[in-house]
This record gives sequence, structure tokens and C-alpha cells, in this order.
Amino acid sequence: MARTASLSGFPEWLPQERVVEQHVLDTLRRVFELHGFGSIETRAVETVGQLLRKGEIDKEVYGLSRLQDDDDSAAKSDPNALALHFDLTVPFARYVVENAGYLAFPFRRYQMQKVWRGERPQEGRAREFTQADIDVVGDGELPFRYDVEIVLVIAEALSALPIPEFRLRVNNRKLSEGFYRGIGLEDTAGVLRSIDKLEKIGAEKVAELLRTELGATQEQAEAALKLATIQTTDTSFVEQVRALGVEHPLLEEGLTELEQVVAAASSRAPGKVVADLSIARGLDYYTGTVVETVLVGHEQLGSICSGGRYESLASKGSKTFPGVGLSIGVTRLVSRILSQEFATASRSVPTAVLVTLNDEDSWSAAQDVAAQLRARGISTEVAAKADKFGKQIKFADRRGIPFVWFTDAEGAHQVKDIRSGEQVAADPAVWTPAEEDLRPQVIARVAAEV
Amino acid sequence: MARTASLSGFPEWLPQERVVEQHVLDTLRRVFELHGFGSIETRAVETVGQLLRKGEIDKEVYGLSRLQDDDDSAAKSDPNALALHFDLTVPFARYVVENAGYLAFPFRRYQMQKVWRGERPQEGRAREFTQADIDVVGDGELPFRYDVEIVLVIAEALSALPIPEFRLRVNNRKLSEGFYRGIGLEDTAGVLRSIDKLEKIGAEKVAELLRTELGATQEQAEAALKLATIQTTDTSFVEQVRALGVEHPLLEEGLTELEQVVAAASSRAPGKVVADLSIARGLDYYTGTVVETVLVGHEQLGSICSGGRYESLASKGSKTFPGVGLSIGVTRLVSRILSQEFATASRSVPTAVLVTLNDEDSWSAAQDVAAQLRARGISTEVAAKADKFGKQIKFADRRGIPFVWFTDAEGAHQVKDIRSGEQVAADPAVWTPAEEDLRPQVIARVAAEV
Repeated sequence: MARTASLSGFPEWLPQERVVEQHVLDTLRRVFELHGFGSIETRAVETVGQLLRKGEIDKEVYGLSRLQDDDDSAAKSDPNALALHFDLTVPFARYVVENAGYLAFPFRRYQMQKVWRGERPQEGRAREFTQADIDVVGDGELPFRYDVEIVLVIAEALSALPIPEFRLRVNNRKLSEGFYRGIGLEDTAGVLRSIDKLEKIGAEKVAELLRTELGATQEQAEAALKLATIQTTDTSFVEQVRALGVEHPLLEEGLTELEQVVAAASSRAPGKVVADLSIARGLDYYTGTVVETVLVGHEQLGSICSGGRYESLASKGSKTFPGVGLSIGVTRLVSRILSQEFATASRSVPTAVLVTLNDEDSWSAAQDVAAQLRARGISTEVAAKADKFGKQIKFADRRGIPFVWFTDAEGAHQVKDIRSGEQVAADPAVWTPAEEDLRPQVIARVAAEV
Repeated sequence: MARTASLSGFPEWLPQERVVEQHVLDTLRRVFELHGFGSIETRAVETVGQLLRKGEIDKEVYGLSRLQDDDDSAAKSDPNALALHFDLTVPFARYVVENAGYLAFPFRRYQMQKVWRGERPQEGRAREFTQADIDVVGDGELPFRYDVEIVLVIAEALSALPIPEFRLRVNNRKLSEGFYRGIGLEDTAGVLRSIDKLEKIGAEKVAELLRTELGATQEQAEAALKLATIQTTDTSFVEQVRALGVEHPLLEEGLTELEQVVAAASSRAPGKVVADLSIARGLDYYTGTVVETVLVGHEQLGSICSGGRYESLASKGSKTFPGVGLSIGVTRLVSRILSQEFATASRSVPTAVLVTLNDEDSWSAAQDVAAQLRARGISTEVAAKADKFGKQIKFADRRGIPFVWFTDAEGAHQVKDIRSGEQVAADPAVWTPAEEDLRPQVIARVAAEV
């Protein structure tokens, strides 16, 4: 990992690192599909109008223009101009609206794609990176139980990855907003934005913001901050909130919802989920459950998985499509896995066997041996030249191929494990390497649980 | 397939169509890995200078600029400006040069990614599409045998896809260039460009081009055209070329090379490969083997897989990296598979089983059943509401889920195949659906061979 990207913010992996990334993507796919999420991909390109509709700051977006167009300054202010998506939620909302007639609701999908943001690159923040999203979207309504379920699915998926302990920090917008209303603060979005800064600027400065910018009294500011300090791994947060003596129907709704999530998680994914009433999430479209996730001991990396419930991510005429979804920062996770060596690949090539050549005329016979091995799922290469055997073995060694295959002039076969030096007679129709040698293994230094 | 893309040239698939695309990508990955090709991905973004270095026409390239930059007209002429890659070969060449010290040569990789071209979209030509490339790259030298091998790998990969008969049309640049030199035409690149137009404009017009633009005599033009008419499924093209009475050392070299490819292919992949001496390939960097591929009966779709040998795709100081590679047009193939219904997915969801709810309190027990099924690889969803069973069954039916699971108040389990109506007692620890119901199947109307 001494290498740096040749374009800042655009990471690329070496083959051995890519094996680890593939393992992460394959694992997520497996868990998502086991839970009934199907794959979709959306185009990388959206119209500028679509991307900025939800009020996302525009400086993060990369606009596109064909190189031979001389003047595109006009095009850029055109809402039909093209730009690269900066997340997978906005494109997914468009996809749902466009294809609603073809989808069976509640529609469950996962989506693992690259997204782009023109920000200044820094540790944990790239300009091109892969996200893995799951969402469940309803047509008109979506039972709350999907909030509980999606948190459990993500906890299971993250548990299957070679990463250290993580913690899903869960809150509920209704709970916070109901509480703020209950203490007489009506600009709940403003309060959430201030509370969102708690970890960055501290309680005192947040209190000042609440007083100066939102006209809160000292008492109101203190109550809002008290709520944000509540953190429990079980449902005891409910009592702690009640002890603050605030009442509001929305607060009650939020308490009941968050209680369901935390109750299910504490029994089904113990230790993975905490109720954390400081979690606000900046984006306006969340309306209930909100989630951020930290790697324990790597909090400065930022959230590795975020999302929540949105009552109306998309709408079409009078129809609305409520949803709940979470997004894993795959590139952020893989970068950390590699830089901290949480996991490494046992080799960089899929190849298990190199079939050597006796002489230049034996290439075709060697291909026959290779075909027999491949037919049983064993990745095999054939030497391109009849070099001395020592050179052919070195070739395999240099590429990290564990076995070399010899066929003598009489057609007798032998296979050699070049790590141990052990060489045995073998039949290409039946010989099989040990399971752990069949393909590159991703070896976790921290234990994955699934 | 009545849907049209909401942005012309940017196709998106419905979940059921995406299952077919995933099958194509998974199949290619499996075959490539069996042959020792490892995965890499490169960033979507290159510098304009890098992209235009090989003389590719610039009008196909999408430049990037951050939306908030007011003036980027200057940036566009800047070779360090960013743009989206238009193929995977140019980025791969850069990757090899940048990482040469970390790669084991001959380096074999596959790469399956989206690429972008700002062209006018038309049938078989999109602005965003997926390519699947394999290349073998050497450090300084690369034995010719890799040319033979890569043609065989691609023939095997394409044979495993649910597509009709295909034909790899193979030629060799040395053969053509040697022949042109042998008849006294020295601007071999010019002749190749003219011959490349043969299918579009016909023999007469090509002859005219050769005479007027390249100063060929009538006799030279006729000889060049005669060479281009030679097409054989075995190595008999060698005799046919010799019968034209032209001699040149480069011609001999090309004949020997192409003979090796066609000889190996005619025994190992009979009927898949033809020597076709009209194949020229526009791009200048090819120096030996060149390949184009047609779907028989769908020739107007254009080439579905192209590439060849390049003696110096990349260089670093005095080092050169010769390679041989082929690129499959995945989106072009998948579009055709879907529009012609060469294959369809048996269902759009991964889910095999919906676990129903007896009452609202049974959700947790239903999750236990689901967890047992998932632990054995069976994709399972749990109903979100304790609706009447008829409604829960309809829910499964609407989503295309084949089985529903019932657990009564006493904990007795039954599973129902909602297609046949058959319902049986079942144990969540051992019950397994039939193999073909376990996950969505891609059913080929045309037979895949592997």
C-alpha cells in the first residue's frame, strides 16, 4: 500500500487488492440476495435537473460535455445537461418512478456501483468510489417492519466482512422532531442541522447556535442537548427520554419505532446496534429511522454505512413511493481493510495449476490436460514455451501459482506443490487441489462472523 | 422490451433483464478465471492527454467539469483535464505502465466495466455500455502462443452464453501488410483503411479509392481485393494466398501465425473461427492477429467481440509491453439477447420462499424460520404484515416467489408451491427447493454449449 493513486481521489487496486474488493462485493451480493434483494444498475449519468432537485449542493457534481463542443457554458445551466450521479439514491428514485408499472412492490433492490463527487479528496473520501445500497420501496405505503428488517440485513452483511467491530447508530427523526416541538422549538430542521454538528464543534457551540440562530432559550437548548446525549444498547433509552418530561404525539411515534428496531437488533444482532439520539443525518428527505455506522476504533474514518426512512423519496402524480434504505461505503471500507491489513488475499491470480511443456510439440496435449482440470472448476494456465522445467516452475512461482503439472513423453502425469516441493502422480480427470488452494482466499486478520 | 431508455443511448434493465445481464457477466467471469485471468478495474476517468494520445477521434469523448466552475473552456484544451474512458484498452495500458513493478508478467487480466462515447446513439450503439476485456501483456516480449490461446478462451466464453452461433473472423496484419508490400503498395495503413470499407461500399468503390487515393494500379487494386475475398474455416487459406504468387518475408510471417491460430481453433473450437482476410480493424496499434466477431444471422449488429495483437500498447522509457487482447461488447450482446428473447429469466427476484405471518406477534418466529433457510443458501423474505393468508400468498405470487411457508400456532411447518398448489409438511432445518427453483434461472432459447 505504498502506492498512491496517479490521479488524486481516484483509487485503483492491484490484482491482489482487487481480490479483497471482489470478496467484499461478492459477500454483500450473497447476503443481499439471501434476503430477497435483486440487483439493478442505473446509468452513471443523470440530468443536472434531476440531480439538483433534492437541493444537494451543486459543487460536488461532475458535469459532462462532449470534448468537441466549443461552448458548453450555456449547457451547464441547462437542467437537461448531463452529469455523473453522486449517490445511488437519487438515480434509484428516478428508476422507480420511470419503471413503476413494471416493478412488483414492495420493491427490494441492491445496487453496487461507482459514484463521483468533485470534492477535495482526503483520507476516507475519494472522488470516485463504490457504494452498495439496499432499499425497500413501497407503492403508496410501506410497513414500518421493513425499517427493522433492513437494519438486521445490514448488520448481517457487515458481520460477514473482514472488518473489526462496527456499531450501527440508530435514531428516529420523529422522535427528535417531536421532542423539539414538545419543548417549543418549531424549526426542527434547523435544530437537527445544529445537533448534527455536535461531534465536530461540541455541546457549548451547538447551544450557542440554537440560541443565536434559532432563538432557543437556554432551557430549550439544554433540553435538546440532553436528548442528544442519550445512547443505549437496549431499549432503556425510552425511559431516559420519558424522564426528560417532554410530551408530543410525534415523539411517542418515534419512540415506539426506534424501540422496535433496537429490541429486534439487541436480540438478533447483539452488540451491533445502539440507539444514539445524537444522530441527525444532514439530508432533508429522511422522515423516520436514521442510521450511521462506525468502525469501532476507526471513528475518524466517518460513517461506513448510512441511510434511513424517507416517506416520499419519489412521487408520480398523486402517487408517492416511501422507502427505507442503507448505503455501504465499499471503497472507504476496502481502503481501510487494505491499509490496516484487516484481510489479505492468498494470491493475486485465480490460477491453481500451470501445465508445463515437455517440448514445443506438447502444447496441444497440455491444453487437453488443462481442459480436463478446468472442466472440474480448477483454474489452469498452460506454459507458452518449452523452457527448462526450472524456468517454467519459476514462472509459476513468480505468478503465485501453487501447482505445476508435468506430463512425460509416455503420457504419465505428475503434479508438484511448489511451496512444499511435494510431487505426486496424478490423473487430470480426478486430481483436485485442497479447497483452500482452489481459488484465492481472503484471509481475515479480524474474524468475519458469517 | 417495449420500454425505451429515458435518456437516449443510456440503456437500463428491469430486474428480470438484469438477471440475464448478471448471468452473462458471471459466466464470462467464470470462464476467464478458469483460464487464469484475474480481475482488475481502472478508474472511469482519464486525463484528456492520455485518452487522445493514440490518435482516437476526440468527438467521442465526454469531458468532465465540476458544475460550479464557471469557465472550463480553457480546461478542455488542457491535456490534464478529466474525461470518461471510451474503452478499456487505453486505461489498461496506463495501469500496466504505472504498476509494472507490482505485476507478474505475462500479466493476464479481465476487466468488465462501463465505458462512454458521446456518439449519436443507434441500434447496437449506446453512449454508456459495458465491455468485458481480456488481455495478456508481456514485459518486453510475449510469445505468439498467447494469440492462439486468447482466441480459444474467447470462443469458449462466447460458447457459454445464451446466444446464437457466432463466428470469430481472424486475420493477421503482417499477412496483409506483407502482401501489400509484395505487390508494391507501401502505404499499408492506407490500404488497410480502404479494405476496411469493403463491406460498406463494395469492391468497386474500394478499388477506386486504392487507385485515386493511394496511387495503386488497376492490377495492384485487384490483387489487394483478391486477398480480401479469401475466407476459409481451415488452414487452406495458406494455399489460396500462395496461389496469388506474391512474396514478402512479412507475408510469410503472417501466414505462419494465422495458420497456427486457425489450426488450433479448427480442432479445439470447430466452426467458431474463420480465417477472413478482409478483416482490417481501423485502429493503428494492432500489429499482428486481428479479430472481429459476428453473430450469425445478426451481422448488421456489428462486431460483438474485437481485438488483436499490439507489439507496443504501452511503453515506459526503453521498455515496451506487447499484448494481445479481445473485448466483448456486453451491452450490445445483452440488448440483443433481450430483444430477440434468446434467453429469459425464470423470475425477477432472488427470493425462493416467503415466510407468512400467522399474526402480528409471529414476526420474530418467522425470522427464525427464514434464518434457518438462509443458512442453507435459500433466499427468503418474511411477510411484513399478518394479512389474511390469501393476501400473503398473492403478495408472493405478484413478486414471483415460488414458495410460501406457514407455521401454525403449535409450531408445525408447511410449505406450499404456489404454482402447483401442492402443500407439504416441512422442517426449516432440512427442506430444500428443487435446484431449478433455488435461484432465478436463465433459460436459453438458443442452446449455450458450456
